[in-house]
Amino acid sequence: MKRLLPLAAALLFTAAHADEGQWQPYQMAQLQAELKRIGIKVPVSDLSDLSKHPMSAIVSLGGCSASFVSPNGLIVTNHHCAYGSIQRNSTAANNYLAKGFLAKSLAEELPGGPNQRVYVTESVRDVTAEVLNGIAPELGGAERTRLIERNSKALIAACESSPDYRCTLPSFHRGLEFYLIRQMMVRDVRLVYAPSEAIGNYGGDIDNFEFPRHTGDFAFYRAYVGKDGRPADPSPDNVPYASKDFLTVSAAGLKRGDGILLAGYPGVTSRYRLPAEIRYARENDYPKRVADYRRDLDAIAAATAGDTEAEVRYAATVKSINNRMKKLQGLLDGFARKDIPAIKDAQLAEFLAWTAGQKDAARYRALMGELNALIARDQNLAEREFAMGLLTSNELLGTASSAYRFARERGKPDMERELGFQDRDASFIKARFERLQQSYVGRVDRARWLSALQSYQRLPESQRDAASESLVLRGGDPGRQLDAVYAGSTLADTAERLALLQRSAAELEASGDALVKLAVALYPAQQRLREERRALDGDLDRVIPQYMQAVIAWKKSQGKPVYPDANGTLRITYGTVDGYPAADGLYKGPFTTVQGIVAKHTGRDPFDAPAALREAVAQRRFGPYVDPVLGTVPVNFLSSADTTGGNSGSAVMNARGELVGLNFDSTYESITKDWYFDPEITRAIHVDIRYMLWVMSELDGADNLLREMRIVYPQNTR
Amino acid sequence: MKRLLPLAAALLFTAAHADEGQWQPYQMAQLQAELKRIGIKVPVSDLSDLSKHPMSAIVSLGGCSASFVSPNGLIVTNHHCAYGSIQRNSTAANNYLAKGFLAKSLAEELPGGPNQRVYVTESVRDVTAEVLNGIAPELGGAERTRLIERNSKALIAACESSPDYRCTLPSFHRGLEFYLIRQMMVRDVRLVYAPSEAIGNYGGDIDNFEFPRHTGDFAFYRAYVGKDGRPADPSPDNVPYASKDFLTVSAAGLKRGDGILLAGYPGVTSRYRLPAEIRYARENDYPKRVADYRRDLDAIAAATAGDTEAEVRYAATVKSINNRMKKLQGLLDGFARKDIPAIKDAQLAEFLAWTAGQKDAARYRALMGELNALIARDQNLAEREFAMGLLTSNELLGTASSAYRFARERGKPDMERELGFQDRDASFIKARFERLQQSYVGRVDRARWLSALQSYQRLPESQRDAASESLVLRGGDPGRQLDAVYAGSTLADTAERLALLQRSAAELEASGDALVKLAVALYPAQQRLREERRALDGDLDRVIPQYMQAVIAWKKSQGKPVYPDANGTLRITYGTVDGYPAADGLYKGPFTTVQGIVAKHTGRDPFDAPAALREAVAQRRFGPYVDPVLGTVPVNFLSSADTTGGNSGSAVMNARGELVGLNFDSTYESITKDWYFDPEITRAIHVDIRYMLWVMSELDGADNLLREMRIVYPQNTR
Repeated sequence: MKRLLPLAAALLFTAAHADEGQWQPYQMAQLQAELKRIGIKVPVSDLSDLSKHPMSAIVSLGGCSASFVSPNGLIVTNHHCAYGSIQRNSTAANNYLAKGFLAKSLAEELPGGPNQRVYVTESVRDVTAEVLNGIAPELGGAERTRLIERNSKALIAACESSPDYRCTLPSFHRGLEFYLIRQMMVRDVRLVYAPSEAIGNYGGDIDNFEFPRHTGDFAFYRAYVGKDGRPADPSPDNVPYASKDFLTVSAAGLKRGDGILLAGYPGVTSRYRLPAEIRYARENDYPKRVADYRRDLDAIAAATAGDTEAEVRYAATVKSINNRMKKLQGLLDGFARKDIPAIKDAQLAEFLAWTAGQKDAARYRALMGELNALIARDQNLAEREFAMGLLTSNELLGTASSAYRFARERGKPDMERELGFQDRDASFIKARFERLQQSYVGRVDRARWLSALQSYQRLPESQRDAASESLVLRGGDPGRQLDAVYAGSTLADTAERLALLQRSAAELEASGDALVKLAVALYPAQQRLREERRALDGDLDRVIPQYMQAVIAWKKSQGKPVYPDANGTLRITYGTVDGYPAADGLYKGPFTTVQGIVAKHTGRDPFDAPAALREAVAQRRFGPYVDPVLGTVPVNFLSSADTTGGNSGSAVMNARGELVGLNFDSTYESITKDWYFDPEITRAIHVDIRYMLWVMSELDGADNLLREMRIVYPQNTR
Repeated sequence: MKRLLPLAAALLFTAAHADEGQWQPYQMAQLQAELKRIGIKVPVSDLSDLSKHPMSAIVSLGGCSASFVSPNGLIVTNHHCAYGSIQRNSTAANNYLAKGFLAKSLAEELPGGPNQRVYVTESVRDVTAEVLNGIAPELGGAERTRLIERNSKALIAACESSPDYRCTLPSFHRGLEFYLIRQMMVRDVRLVYAPSEAIGNYGGDIDNFEFPRHTGDFAFYRAYVGKDGRPADPSPDNVPYASKDFLTVSAAGLKRGDGILLAGYPGVTSRYRLPAEIRYARENDYPKRVADYRRDLDAIAAATAGDTEAEVRYAATVKSINNRMKKLQGLLDGFARKDIPAIKDAQLAEFLAWTAGQKDAARYRALMGELNALIARDQNLAEREFAMGLLTSNELLGTASSAYRFARERGKPDMERELGFQDRDASFIKARFERLQQSYVGRVDRARWLSALQSYQRLPESQRDAASESLVLRGGDPGRQLDAVYAGSTLADTAERLALLQRSAAELEASGDALVKLAVALYPAQQRLREERRALDGDLDRVIPQYMQAVIAWKKSQGKPVYPDANGTLRITYGTVDGYPAADGLYKGPFTTVQGIVAKHTGRDPFDAPAALREAVAQRRFGPYVDPVLGTVPVNFLSSADTTGGNSGSAVMNARGELVGLNFDSTYESITKDWYFDPEITRAIHVDIRYMLWVMSELDGADNLLREMRIVYPQNTR
């Protein structure tokens, strides 16, 4: 095994143990010894039970994690998770991003936005047997997908007994198990407090994925419900939700080597993928996507140059593309540093050696053959999907296609429709159509599409779709074709876009709008790709669970528990506070301090620390938030906890389950953890509770919130 | 005091003690307790005595430091100190820079070059009384300078009894003390071994001043003398010098926290300067010089663009300017990080408080007044000197001016001439005139001068010299003026330049060469500046020693010994192997390893590690050079020793005085140590002896040298 980092680093500094695993809460009982090793005092029986403290205080914001911190529905999460709410409430005259926002009373709290939700997980039930009911083990293809979806939809419909609940039915271990998750959905969510962006987003995109880091990435929401205590539409009559549970806050913080628990909703990992899948990502897929992001960014930059209004409209898009590109580049850099496919080869060889010794060795051999063939099919299909994506890479066309597809699905009974196009999805689709107006400029959209089409034309014949191509490009000069299409469409108008959702499929087929016509014409080819995907999914759903079952049996034979890949469901991970060797001779973390904010200060965004902060640091007005070892206020810290996207805002808890920080990012070197958890270098970045409390008390005067929370101070202060 | 770095770093890692000081060997007796603290076993009485081991093994190469490592005159120093010798012996067909060079026998050793010298210090004698003999304490101005020079020249002449010796008479504590140093000057120096540049200069300019570092910056020379054992001109009849002393090599290396001794010839430091001097550097001088270097680099880049031949000729110049600019930028960055003038203010205030309590307080007050006035005069003069430098910034003109000045001085008795223009200096001047041809292209020279003149024209009137200006610019278009000057001169021809040195002042005054005419015309103004400088020097020489005497008395009152600023003379410094907090949350060092070379490898210069090296690392063929803690071969390491330019190649010795590494650089954060030694972050960068030995044995097959040296291996190997 090729080593990037010498033993040096590992030996000179306390090495973190391998704290890999995003565990389903019920699995915690299997980890008792591990939790004891790192000093966790919360009983595993409590961690396993979602109705008990502290797990019942952990919530989802949909894409972000959060937790209750008072009995009155007060919720803490990341500043970047509340960003949309802060932005929505800001005006040029009253820019809460720039100056921060603090409601000094309930009356001053601001609407979080029409789509802001808080999901409180109430139950998680294994429904594998029900999902697979009536499906023959040997059945594959589209029919398997259809049956799984049919069973799933029925289970979800039964679960969603009222609009107060949202149910999901994710698969675990890639189709081996299915759990029905029932979440109370609070839909009146208000913004309570956010520090200024100069604190909450200090370092901005420059420091994204980086350490040393100095970001005060925290903000507060409050969940509101109707007077009857049930979720209700936003209304002045609503009252704060009486949260059954909440986290106690420990102002004592942590020190290097301390054990932590981290609970939240990690999105996606791919830890059990085969070497062939990683190699394809490393050698084909990621380089292609990085190049494509760069192309798109170049197109946006050229089209918005000198037009401040257009630049602002595309700022969030650019930020998002940059973020995804940096992540892919981090994966490629990580793969260059360490040959992860080779590590996976070795693991696979071990697994295969084990299967060869099993009595059903022949079945395993056949299984691996099937699996490899499916992976190849998957890669081929993904290439054609990518090509279709380029060809149709126009945001207005996307809405027309969605509207037409939704219209066609509406022709079927709700339970027979494709996932994402049931009546329950209507409000989400509408919100998407509305949101587009904030980030759309026709000229820029045209430039992006044109650039995507030019990129499409350079793809190999085998990946392209001649019929669809002739519909979009019509053999002429692409630029002129696009001009005609934009000139012949009114979809840039939000009302026109929303009106599409009222039309039947026949009405849309009769539309004279150039983009609607194009969407209708492209539908068959797009639908063929989707059907091919459904058929492949059915085959994967037949084969992969068998593979995962074998992997679990193999690990079990070694006495090792197995966690499922992240799938957006509630997980617990644990670890220790620890730095890491970032390169030969270079060691990072675990703590940064307020002095580092001042050292990074340039006076220009994103390193424009507030004068009040710099003054407080200069005068050492640190209150009870001084770390006894560091002699100052810690800002961010690292731990070996196993996290990924979706874990933003996750509670970082100490041995007693008290809140000591919020997860908000990972180090650049950690990015490859999506595929492989490298205990030597994988570190999550957290904002330290002491910095949060210091900012709240010393800079922002958030005394009302400090009083509302239950805060335990170190004994030698206060 | 503003703190860049939080207590964090200091407390989390073993902090180095304050190992400030570049001590004169005789001072070591005062440091017995300190040396004992870091575990040094060599008796201080030995360190104090230049005739004893190990100090008698330490030599100077003139600008670099080195040491004998065998009884047969074998010398080890830095690769970058031997760079010129390697380059000179290289041809396109036989490029020793690229492939490295190893003489397997004495016969294969190559000439080091006509100016390569080895200086072996034989004696150091305090001659303060003789230098100041006959000079009234109150005498200042040019007369004081003249008398000091007269006395100095007489002492030097008496000391240089034969061409085998070179004597120097540097002042210590800025004129408070003078020591006459007598060095045997070996003038047949041969290149024995240098690894390839891919090892010896790994990381190149990109890594200059940086850490983590992976540079194998070492090379070997051998000193040759006549059969009679005395220095001789290079000749095949010469024999290896039988070095009276040499360093034993310890292959055991060091570990974090180990004490070290470092001996060599540091060039210049300014630790005792006043806050006003640092502020002037920070706010005026350094920013001006950085801008000027950038201007010059831009001019060279524009003039050499697309002309590979010209680029190569200016490569060394560009490298040197970049190096100086990076150093100044490092100083400015360091000043931005830490307010060193404020620290100096506090120290000065302490000193002034002490003087106020002395019985001659009034004298101290007057002294400080005089000193401040002199500093202001110095700054004013320096600005005019800088302007004159820009106006005459042409390398051919420089040779013409030197030749004319030398010719005028030759008209006086040798002992009355200006320093640098005595007969003893003739060979050095001639060598400079010759060397120019390697790095000169007329077109580029013209572009640099033109750019300098444009910069000159933007200077304030008060700094410019109207008379000289009219000679150079003649009021017309500068570009056209320069064309005329170049067209009217033959000095681009080396023979013509050398011929200047044969001409009398009258002959030069009658010359029709445009550049010679200009040199003659500019002489009076330049001479006036020099005389002003001599007068100022005389005044400084009168006042500053009084100040330094007071500082020494003050320190003595606190029981602290005082080391003089570096002045190119032999010094000893000590410290411990230690990393440092480079920024909040970022810790560097102390060791890098061979794995880090592979991690940095890109296949492109300067990160093009030899395939053999990468293979040896991959196969872990580390021989007896594995560090037991690191588990691999260390490459570079850091210590808290107090070094500066000139310390390149200095022997790093362990507690027993055995060679364990070579000093070759400092970290970027350390650059401000020229003014202020900050024990928290000041670190010198050394190449580890184990890497040197590993490269010699594993990669380069330098077994003959390994056998010639006395190497002590760790007990558990071999």
